[in-house]
Amino acid sequence: MGDYQVTGVQQDALGAVQLELGGNPNALALRRPFDPLAHDLEASFRLTRFADLKGRGCKVPQEVLNKLVEGLQQDYNSSSEHEHAHFMHMAIPRIGIGLDCSVTPLRHGGLCLVQTTDFFYPLVDDPYMMGKIACANVLSDLYAMGVTECDNMLMLLGVSTKMTEKERDVVIPLIMRGFKDSALEAGTTVTGGQTVVNPWCTIGGVATTVCQPNEYIVPDNAVVGDVLVLTKPLGTQVAVNAHQWLDQPERWNRIKLVVSEEDVRKAYHRAMDSMARLNRIASRLMHKYNAHGATDITGFGLLGHAQTLASHQKNEVSFVIHNLPVIAKMAAVAKACGNMSLGRNFRGLLICLPREQAAAYCKDIEKQEGYQAWIIGIVEKGNRTARIIDKPRVIEVPAKE
Amino acid sequence: MGDYQVTGVQQDALGAVQLELGGNPNALALRRPFDPLAHDLEASFRLTRFADLKGRGCKVPQEVLNKLVEGLQQDYNSSSEHEHAHFMHMAIPRIGIGLDCSVTPLRHGGLCLVQTTDFFYPLVDDPYMMGKIACANVLSDLYAMGVTECDNMLMLLGVSTKMTEKERDVVIPLIMRGFKDSALEAGTTVTGGQTVVNPWCTIGGVATTVCQPNEYIVPDNAVVGDVLVLTKPLGTQVAVNAHQWLDQPERWNRIKLVVSEEDVRKAYHRAMDSMARLNRIASRLMHKYNAHGATDITGFGLLGHAQTLASHQKNEVSFVIHNLPVIAKMAAVAKACGNMSLGRNFRGLLICLPREQAAAYCKDIEKQEGYQAWIIGIVEKGNRTARIIDKPRVIEVPAKE
Repeated sequence: MGDYQVTGVQQDALGAVQLELGGNPNALALRRPFDPLAHDLEASFRLTRFADLKGRGCKVPQEVLNKLVEGLQQDYNSSSEHEHAHFMHMAIPRIGIGLDCSVTPLRHGGLCLVQTTDFFYPLVDDPYMMGKIACANVLSDLYAMGVTECDNMLMLLGVSTKMTEKERDVVIPLIMRGFKDSALEAGTTVTGGQTVVNPWCTIGGVATTVCQPNEYIVPDNAVVGDVLVLTKPLGTQVAVNAHQWLDQPERWNRIKLVVSEEDVRKAYHRAMDSMARLNRIASRLMHKYNAHGATDITGFGLLGHAQTLASHQKNEVSFVIHNLPVIAKMAAVAKACGNMSLGRNFRGLLICLPREQAAAYCKDIEKQEGYQAWIIGIVEKGNRTARIIDKPRVIEVPAKE
Repeated sequence: MGDYQVTGVQQDALGAVQLELGGNPNALALRRPFDPLAHDLEASFRLTRFADLKGRGCKVPQEVLNKLVEGLQQDYNSSSEHEHAHFMHMAIPRIGIGLDCSVTPLRHGGLCLVQTTDFFYPLVDDPYMMGKIACANVLSDLYAMGVTECDNMLMLLGVSTKMTEKERDVVIPLIMRGFKDSALEAGTTVTGGQTVVNPWCTIGGVATTVCQPNEYIVPDNAVVGDVLVLTKPLGTQVAVNAHQWLDQPERWNRIKLVVSEEDVRKAYHRAMDSMARLNRIASRLMHKYNAHGATDITGFGLLGHAQTLASHQKNEVSFVIHNLPVIAKMAAVAKACGNMSLGRNFRGLLICLPREQAAAYCKDIEKQEGYQAWIIGIVEKGNRTARIIDKPRVIEVPAKE
């Protein structure tokens, strides 16, 4: 593949992103693909090298967390101090393992505090995009609860001790700007936070809303006959990994029979856009189409989060997933690498909708956003678990839509 | 010094702490000084070794942060989207460098969202106390603004990749419990958070309150003639360092002429208690005695935070500090180590009070808490700076009061 084609792909991907950015006068300059040389950094500079866990996500494994928080949970369950005990089943497991937000009744007339915090190690090498992705993903926890307004955002930043001063001065302001731009796009502002030094680079935040109880959707209301909708394609982490392997011949050799360099670059840009896209419209439409609950899919993967959501249902239901929409070619790459997980870090919403509303939901989201959503499964009678069928249908999602 | 005496000191310090803990049935068991062997860990296990920055605090230096956030600040200052621009001077500099909380007006009738986030690397080797200290210090940012009610607390935890499974399973639940107990003591609960793996162990949180504007005190109202009150003695970091040097002969030799092992152990326990003590009563009394503003003293030291507070004043004033209350013997240790900073990590409030109210404030806090507060300086006419006089008076504060 020649240079011309590569450039062509990058420009097209860039064009698509620029269309989305709209009013921000800095958007054009910022949305050129990040070129370390243009900032007087070494050509080999890679943001993703400032953490060792990128491929695995930064979360403590679910079973370890369960063990660690056991003591705390018991304590809360037996506590008589909590008049609002019905909130506790949502709130406490959130220490890394449970639902997406904590909900706290406030002293002031009927209002609730809805909060979430999340942070990440670099997933992509473009600092500005990494900032956007981090902010979008913190917000996604609110959106999964049907909360579309964020009242305040705090930013949590860890500056790697391994960065040179020069690298730090280039990269950190770009991350901050990406984070801030995403917050503005979501109609909120970053009013504070904390910046520390840390061996690994970290970026995250705290999203907070004060709202009335009808503004959020408690995700425990699935009924037999509902269907499951997914708002973003899987395979983002695979695309990010494959893109890094373009630099690593021994890795690249493992996948080059199933994918071209152009496919990988396209998929990578699609993945970045997808991760940076807000789930806000998806969240707003949850109210319109009477969603029975949702979760966002993050470090524990599609199945892991589906299982958590299933376990919190009031009714005796189970989730069965038949279809896996995946960024084009990334299913083949995952297979060539020994069934790499498709569902990590893709940050779509998994939404439980009444069957008769789901098609209209998908149509509406496509009309408003220009991106597809998919019906991927059903809700059956069951014991509050989730599974993917043996041979799910893989839906190839073009890198550009 | 013999073993008996060491044990004696530990028991006394323990007794004092137990008195404070009151109702918690687990308090006695938890408040024995942390003994790694009792948990099947190596005798040499030290929590503070799971981060390299403990002595220096974890903050990015102030001048570096100023540079990094420059771009963001400009942006906000020129923005026309913010109807509440008068909040912005407080809010944005909080990205590591400014005042203690962000204050955001809410959509709902006259209420404000007051938030702060902070996190720390291990400062002390006792995991339970480290949890308490972290929570107390997150809350301290609210208390510095006169906000005495915390509506919600999130916990942010980084589990060190260098811990063995055994170490993790012992230490992390103790940290969580300390954090939670401190939150309960403050009348709030930990409803969520995030736990990640990270090279260094980190512990912190997010404290949030929704309140009416009269519940917080904007710290910009100092007038000439006011005095400055400090609510905790300096020298906590010195005590923590000296305690670690008991294990390190070459370090210990540098200070053993000015301090005994018993002095160090006493000072260390005083420092832990002091750091874990809530500034909540100090905060409540700020309203009663008409405080003109306050800040809590953290990673940037007494002078650094005094300067920041001075720079935010509406009136043309400056702060002059004459007195330095220091945990007994720690001024001498600091001097023996080449003028080590006394003001780091001590987490007291520096409060600006009308002259005629200050003595009553100090008396009231001592009556309610059993701990002294000190008048340490005055407010003069000036250009919004702060200084410590050439030869400040060092007030030796006994390790037990």
